[in-house]
Amino acid sequence: MVTDQLERLSRLPIRDNLRGLRPYGAPQIDVPILLNVNENTHGVPGDVRRAIVEAVQDAVAGLNRYPDREFTLLREHLAGYLGHGLTADNIWAANGSNEVLQHILLAFGGPGRTALGFPPTYSMYPLLAGSTGTSYLAGTRADNFDLDAGATAEQVAETGANIVFLCSPNNPTGTALSLDVVAAAYEAGEAARAIIIVDEAYAEFSHTGTPSALELLPGRERLIVSRTMSKAFALAGARVGYLAAAPEISDALRLVRLPYHLSAITQATAIAALTHSAKLLANVDEIKRQRDRIVSALTGLGLPVAPSDSNFVLFGGLEDPRAVWQGLLDAGVLIRDVGIPGHLRVTAGTEEETRIFLETLESLIRPSVS
Amino acid sequence: MVTDQLERLSRLPIRDNLRGLRPYGAPQIDVPILLNVNENTHGVPGDVRRAIVEAVQDAVAGLNRYPDREFTLLREHLAGYLGHGLTADNIWAANGSNEVLQHILLAFGGPGRTALGFPPTYSMYPLLAGSTGTSYLAGTRADNFDLDAGATAEQVAETGANIVFLCSPNNPTGTALSLDVVAAAYEAGEAARAIIIVDEAYAEFSHTGTPSALELLPGRERLIVSRTMSKAFALAGARVGYLAAAPEISDALRLVRLPYHLSAITQATAIAALTHSAKLLANVDEIKRQRDRIVSALTGLGLPVAPSDSNFVLFGGLEDPRAVWQGLLDAGVLIRDVGIPGHLRVTAGTEEETRIFLETLESLIRPSVS
Repeated sequence: MVTDQLERLSRLPIRDNLRGLRPYGAPQIDVPILLNVNENTHGVPGDVRRAIVEAVQDAVAGLNRYPDREFTLLREHLAGYLGHGLTADNIWAANGSNEVLQHILLAFGGPGRTALGFPPTYSMYPLLAGSTGTSYLAGTRADNFDLDAGATAEQVAETGANIVFLCSPNNPTGTALSLDVVAAAYEAGEAARAIIIVDEAYAEFSHTGTPSALELLPGRERLIVSRTMSKAFALAGARVGYLAAAPEISDALRLVRLPYHLSAITQATAIAALTHSAKLLANVDEIKRQRDRIVSALTGLGLPVAPSDSNFVLFGGLEDPRAVWQGLLDAGVLIRDVGIPGHLRVTAGTEEETRIFLETLESLIRPSVS
Repeated sequence: MVTDQLERLSRLPIRDNLRGLRPYGAPQIDVPILLNVNENTHGVPGDVRRAIVEAVQDAVAGLNRYPDREFTLLREHLAGYLGHGLTADNIWAANGSNEVLQHILLAFGGPGRTALGFPPTYSMYPLLAGSTGTSYLAGTRADNFDLDAGATAEQVAETGANIVFLCSPNNPTGTALSLDVVAAAYEAGEAARAIIIVDEAYAEFSHTGTPSALELLPGRERLIVSRTMSKAFALAGARVGYLAAAPEISDALRLVRLPYHLSAITQATAIAALTHSAKLLANVDEIKRQRDRIVSALTGLGLPVAPSDSNFVLFGGLEDPRAVWQGLLDAGVLIRDVGIPGHLRVTAGTEEETRIFLETLESLIRPSVS
């Protein structure tokens, strides 16, 4: 914002904790290769597009009416997709997983309550906490960004946090947590009756055999596993996030959601996509191949790379990450500076996008790699 | 919810101010004639439906990408629709006007701040205040639900409210405020730098010549006029609410909105609808005729009726409103019990829906009207 705008904004009676803040968000720059916000760059297959348009056509016929406030059919489809014996009663959804997390904070956070996250992690956690009046505590990780069961349990217990964010695979580092970390956090949170959120936005990209925290749900009514259709499902533009948990979690979220928060068209779009999930997810294996290719190429260049179970790779060892970021942008490749010194994050795109990224990066860093 | 569910919910660590609450929302009952939530019962014309589906088809092609976070094209279309010299900089939008109001409360309300409303009015105001930690004050109206400039200014000044909700036409009473009430509230709120919200969700149904608070925007940077596409535009299922205000209001709301809160499909749908606004709004005159017909028929039945500038009518004089509501439901007509003793609220539907409602009502109350 320009000075004039900031001056006018400063005269408005905004909340004190918002003063001086800038709006959240990665730059939306129009370049040929966008590898900055972990989208699925493969796009939606033609037959799935047609199915979505047909579903929307049906929904538009009744668009003068409010949508199903309970989005029952969508919850059934999401439960079916997740499996693990889940039913519609276990599912909640909203306009992107950010809104799902906001609902959780509105129901279980708020003034006098605290949320614990483990940075570097998803940058929306502290912002969502702030906007709901929840205090945010930054926990610690090992130097290699690792988080083990002991360290997690200790921090959960010591802080007495009411809400714990475990991002797995973690954004922006890419690594999945083992389930014993989740179980330990849950147990350590017993005294404070902490809500444990496992944010599995990137779960579909995990290496084969990586278990989901969905396995831990039975008997753990304070455990929530959140997911999204923005990544593996290639539907970032449709804004559909969801969660699986005990049915009483959904009952709690019904108390804070805005009525009719999911439009009839959003519900129709998501249901059509879930009906064709196999086709939509067909590109996941290819994306994982490109992800592994990036990891091995960067390792070959001598750059330290975090193991990745997601569709992006965080790499370090950069003397001047800003210059590398700019050099890539000048070549038409947008990646992300997530604010970790010496590091940048890149999304695994198509074979061609990955090739151009790797070639450009190599040309940029060769001179400075010794 | 059944007892078992409530018991399980009570064991979860929800916020204290949510304990014992039930989820908001009118019953969603499937009967032939739905006149309970002030929808536009005329539906979306066929050619507008086709335009929406075509627009969605284009949007689906890029659905793997996040939507335009600034929804610039949508804001341009909304400004063009409102006129009054407004531009995209004056516009904000969200998933329904509830989310627009939530954004305002998140930016300007919160702990230590108060919002003032004048019940009976839109029942979401206290709920939105509660979920954002804003104290809600219930102001008073005259016995006939009237609100004049003097009484409004006095209450705004005396309470020192930070946010003032003026609903015009007011839901559920139906009557529009004169602009001097808005101007007086704005002036009285100067000391507290109060944000004055004029909720014009039903403005398009006002009697010819009723001015909009949009006229008062120039020079009033604390004034916000909120609108919706759910009513006159017949798009309740699409969830699009918006507001017009000084550009710095949008700058403030950018600090609290969730990134990418409006899906690419929602943006495409709304833009297509606005491109065909004349066709969509063609039924407004007919709805106003049915509204006036209801007012005059109920008056003829001896029932006290509030003057209505909206697409619904609040009527009183009922000894047993619950019995009348049930009698109508048994005949396939769902209207709304808004909790005002002796009163019910009915939406103006099509000519045929209105006829059936009036005939059924007459048969139900004839015995008890003296």
